[in-house]
Amino acid sequence: MKNIDTLSVNAIRVLSADAIQKAKSGHPGLPLGSAAMAYELWAHHMNHNPADPQWPNRDRFILSGGHGSMLLYSLLHLFGYGNLSKEDLMQFRQMGSLTPGHPEYRHTEGVEATTGPLGAGMGMAVGMALAETHLAAVFNKENYPVVDHYTYVLGGDGCMMEGISSEAFSLAGTLGLSKLIVLYDSNQISIEGSTDIAFTENVQERMRAFGFQTLTVEDGNDLEAIGAAIEEAKADTSRPSFITVKTQIGYGCPAKQGTAAAHGEPLGDDNIRAMKEYLQWPSQEPFYVPDEVYAHYSSLAREKAETEAAWNVMFAAYCQEYPEMEELWNQYHDEALAEKLWDDAGFWAQGEKPEATRNLSGKVLNYVKDKLPNLIGGSADLAPSNKTHMNGEGDYSKADRKGRNLHFGVRELAMTAIGNGMMLHGGLRAYVATFFVFSDYTKPMARLSALMQLPLTFVFTHDSIGVGEDGPTHEPVEQLAMLRALPNFHVFRPCDAVETAAAWYSALTSRRTPTALVLTRQNLAPMAGSSREALKGGYVIDDCEGTPDAILIASGSEVELAVKAKGLLQEEGWKIRVVSMPCMDLFEEQSEEYKESVLPKAVRKRVAVEALSGFGWGKYTGLDGACVCMTGFGTSGPQAELFKHFGFTPEHVAETVKGL
Amino acid sequence: MKNIDTLSVNAIRVLSADAIQKAKSGHPGLPLGSAAMAYELWAHHMNHNPADPQWPNRDRFILSGGHGSMLLYSLLHLFGYGNLSKEDLMQFRQMGSLTPGHPEYRHTEGVEATTGPLGAGMGMAVGMALAETHLAAVFNKENYPVVDHYTYVLGGDGCMMEGISSEAFSLAGTLGLSKLIVLYDSNQISIEGSTDIAFTENVQERMRAFGFQTLTVEDGNDLEAIGAAIEEAKADTSRPSFITVKTQIGYGCPAKQGTAAAHGEPLGDDNIRAMKEYLQWPSQEPFYVPDEVYAHYSSLAREKAETEAAWNVMFAAYCQEYPEMEELWNQYHDEALAEKLWDDAGFWAQGEKPEATRNLSGKVLNYVKDKLPNLIGGSADLAPSNKTHMNGEGDYSKADRKGRNLHFGVRELAMTAIGNGMMLHGGLRAYVATFFVFSDYTKPMARLSALMQLPLTFVFTHDSIGVGEDGPTHEPVEQLAMLRALPNFHVFRPCDAVETAAAWYSALTSRRTPTALVLTRQNLAPMAGSSREALKGGYVIDDCEGTPDAILIASGSEVELAVKAKGLLQEEGWKIRVVSMPCMDLFEEQSEEYKESVLPKAVRKRVAVEALSGFGWGKYTGLDGACVCMTGFGTSGPQAELFKHFGFTPEHVAETVKGL
Repeated sequence: MKNIDTLSVNAIRVLSADAIQKAKSGHPGLPLGSAAMAYELWAHHMNHNPADPQWPNRDRFILSGGHGSMLLYSLLHLFGYGNLSKEDLMQFRQMGSLTPGHPEYRHTEGVEATTGPLGAGMGMAVGMALAETHLAAVFNKENYPVVDHYTYVLGGDGCMMEGISSEAFSLAGTLGLSKLIVLYDSNQISIEGSTDIAFTENVQERMRAFGFQTLTVEDGNDLEAIGAAIEEAKADTSRPSFITVKTQIGYGCPAKQGTAAAHGEPLGDDNIRAMKEYLQWPSQEPFYVPDEVYAHYSSLAREKAETEAAWNVMFAAYCQEYPEMEELWNQYHDEALAEKLWDDAGFWAQGEKPEATRNLSGKVLNYVKDKLPNLIGGSADLAPSNKTHMNGEGDYSKADRKGRNLHFGVRELAMTAIGNGMMLHGGLRAYVATFFVFSDYTKPMARLSALMQLPLTFVFTHDSIGVGEDGPTHEPVEQLAMLRALPNFHVFRPCDAVETAAAWYSALTSRRTPTALVLTRQNLAPMAGSSREALKGGYVIDDCEGTPDAILIASGSEVELAVKAKGLLQEEGWKIRVVSMPCMDLFEEQSEEYKESVLPKAVRKRVAVEALSGFGWGKYTGLDGACVCMTGFGTSGPQAELFKHFGFTPEHVAETVKGL
Repeated sequence: MKNIDTLSVNAIRVLSADAIQKAKSGHPGLPLGSAAMAYELWAHHMNHNPADPQWPNRDRFILSGGHGSMLLYSLLHLFGYGNLSKEDLMQFRQMGSLTPGHPEYRHTEGVEATTGPLGAGMGMAVGMALAETHLAAVFNKENYPVVDHYTYVLGGDGCMMEGISSEAFSLAGTLGLSKLIVLYDSNQISIEGSTDIAFTENVQERMRAFGFQTLTVEDGNDLEAIGAAIEEAKADTSRPSFITVKTQIGYGCPAKQGTAAAHGEPLGDDNIRAMKEYLQWPSQEPFYVPDEVYAHYSSLAREKAETEAAWNVMFAAYCQEYPEMEELWNQYHDEALAEKLWDDAGFWAQGEKPEATRNLSGKVLNYVKDKLPNLIGGSADLAPSNKTHMNGEGDYSKADRKGRNLHFGVRELAMTAIGNGMMLHGGLRAYVATFFVFSDYTKPMARLSALMQLPLTFVFTHDSIGVGEDGPTHEPVEQLAMLRALPNFHVFRPCDAVETAAAWYSALTSRRTPTALVLTRQNLAPMAGSSREALKGGYVIDDCEGTPDAILIASGSEVELAVKAKGLLQEEGWKIRVVSMPCMDLFEEQSEEYKESVLPKAVRKRVAVEALSGFGWGKYTGLDGACVCMTGFGTSGPQAELFKHFGFTPEHVAETVKGL
């Protein structure tokens, strides 16, 4: 190990320890333990260009153990990413800084994904690796490997304990994603103590069972061994690779290394002093890094820039030789592509007979698939029920990387992380699907979609007690509220064909917000008043003359019900307005004037109708209104009987209005 | 294979196919494919007594693939459980029947757990097996193995794809739960087709990596081989066992067996006719079962009853010899045990200085641990942060089955399923813990806690943007709304020591509802007005003279804020009431009179204050009120700065009131 390498590795340790100490908060254990493997990877194996973090063909790196964020910030600083300065490191974990507690995508240049919830990075890495193989299959030509990069992910014991990593890696093995390389920081320590108390499994054997090549580096500070393992991983072109790197948590800090105490709190001034002595660091001054170390990283960065320069030359030649591919490339990378659907009459005319919105969604999907070639997605083993298959498109597999239909298996959480990973990669627009009740399983990763501002599309079918016979385990009740409460997440529950097209339009044109389409199993009649006004989230779908006596507000399958209740009330002389509210989130984004025009404050008799929990409707129904909603779980039985039993009838809705 | 055995197995197939056909809905694939293994297990290996489904020492059986419910209903009917009649089978999937679409705990006698969400049963089985070992360690005496039973779980490919099974089985292997026996119905078929598309991993190798004994039955209809494997599983007293039983989905139905078409829809009249011919069934009459088959099952049931009779004799002798153990046993099985805390002054006096509610919760826990010997629980590797360690109690492990502190590892979903399994087992009161933001991961299983009416306790700490430096990935925002929307689930967010005691009291005395305790990381001041009225969910904690001009409603850390805002407004002549609302769910259960007394309809100026999403507060704030709540994600920074930044200051709350 050359002296400059040693210094360069220790610079990461020193900066991490100092920043965490200054912040009086943070996790030194991982940065200190993993500094060597991260340095070796970034310095000598990974293709990246600090001067251009957006270079499309860069190798991807995710720090799945996001609590070790100082590892990443130190690397970004030393390599000169986005001019992340020493002062930025000194602002670690302070409000508004570029160095928040966990790495945040879209916030700090060079951060490929927001991480923190353990295991999430593992799933996202699988999505990135999958995206690479698909785009490579679509775009590469002989002598022009324009998409040709690795995806690296670094995580620890916690990442491997979380079920998401098993889900994601089992699929990665099946799909033979050989350019996925996992660095497992194995330090045998968890917050509650030795991993022996809860985690004695043979991790490598598990990974082999999933179809990975497994490699081991016995000494986590041995750069040569780490480098050799990475090269061996690259050399396997049929299997993804999993490198166990045996480390000591908090390496370098004599008083804490190898113990849980190193994990999640500052080392303390005395320990940092001792650490710098132990590492023979040339200065005790906080944040000191020798000039030669900066010079070394700069020279590495210049080499890296040349790799991109060479790729740029190749890409220019590729575009010249294959102008149609350049055009396709631009389509794949055009965020505005779906906006053309606005003027596409066929898109908005999906059906005029009663039909389930899941079916209508399937029609929309199959209508847009040729217009949006970068659309790719699938279901957690429910495609026939979710209607998410793109007909005539292939099934993505080891043998067919061009396939656009993905088969995730029964793995909703990993599916969502993989969807996020595909979106993070760039070039693709992904969708994922399952039953609405199982949106529960997707939640931790849907939250990351929202936080990272990824416009991933969720197709959730079987959207209420309308599920019927499958009973309460399969009947969503609280899921609408759960997702409506999630910031920067649109929940769209359309009532018919027009609104279903609007829902997809909203999802496909969104640039910074994920969208869930919440769709029925049962048939719904087309509504006379439905329109693209649905894109405003809520609108008057059926009105009365003059000021209404009462307003009915409904979404999805209950809009028809509200309109029928209106009919009954009208016969008795009531003036009723029906508001369709397919997307509360979008409605909230409208102007106060618009909202007042739809729901005038003066009208206090308001009833919300939705065959799910009423939680969250109070905002619109107020203290004087009411909900015809579910107050408990559903039950097993035919759909029509359930609706009647739980009060989802025009008569009961009308009675509720009269009772106000 | 004896003829009567063949007939008995085929009776399950015939009843399942006929019931699903009559219901025009259901999943024949699993019941037909797994009939043989289930019969062999229930008839010849499992200790159970159809005449007494609550016998404490019965072997447990969970059908993790809950969609195959007709397998279970057929067994329960044939063995004579709860007098489940042929007519009940004919009512399969009809409203109010004893045979809903998926098995439901507390609904049909002999159903040990509600299943349907795949993999859940695997996690619950681990919980049951864990409970057995703990209770055995506590209660068994020489010659008196009063707790000594196996836990069997049957599931398929979907269960093994879900991450929860990896989480749960990794822990089961670590803990050496040798009386856990998994029957893996391996039919290589998923809904989207062959499992090859998404699931080519070596499942047995994975299970060996987790520390399981693995066994294989090549022919899923070979009763002898199945029986031998079960006995081999029992013989291994150090490791749990995993038996791969190779089956054909929908076996017996020539046109569909071995294909995805057999999975989830009725076979059709013609196919059922063909099936009965293929199986040489003596009659084509729907639901026909030969008398000799009923006689055979009855005779098996009588044998089973003798096993319990023998246990009863032993248990009586045990009680005589160890009267103190009988008393302890009764304590463990006394649902009312915690109610004594009502009169326990020490319980209600946990502290009078500013303190984090997580700390106070830790104190309560350590106060009650000796009074409630059957309390057991732990954290998903965050015990030092969650304050969930019971001091002086052992750590449960392979070596110490008496330990009451559980170490779940970083596995929130499996942890919750295991908690459910412990509660289902009986005899224990369990708690689980993690950061509140990671309640997302627990959600699918928390839903099952609520649906099964299990009073599991969730300790969720770090409950708002008050988390501070860890940033948005660790700062819950929408989680309160998510859990408040869940039916039959109490979310309790206390504001100080008294309310924290009340929260625990509510949780520990609950009989049919799970409770989440939502607790701060940061210190909170004791509130002058806090009291056991908190048990009503919402109450006036600080009032004014006469009718208030405005009401402030808050929970947890924001109660103090509301009281301070009241002070500011009072100086300006406002009459302000402050309502503490630690548990919306309990408040909703109060009488209309009580609710009106706390929140009089006439007072329209209402402001809710909570450092999380305001979603769901509209019910109380109405069209004229406002929320001082989060409207987006949090950020990374010191807690005090975050509160100020996001408007959680007395001044901003006061301004909001004045702005109404």
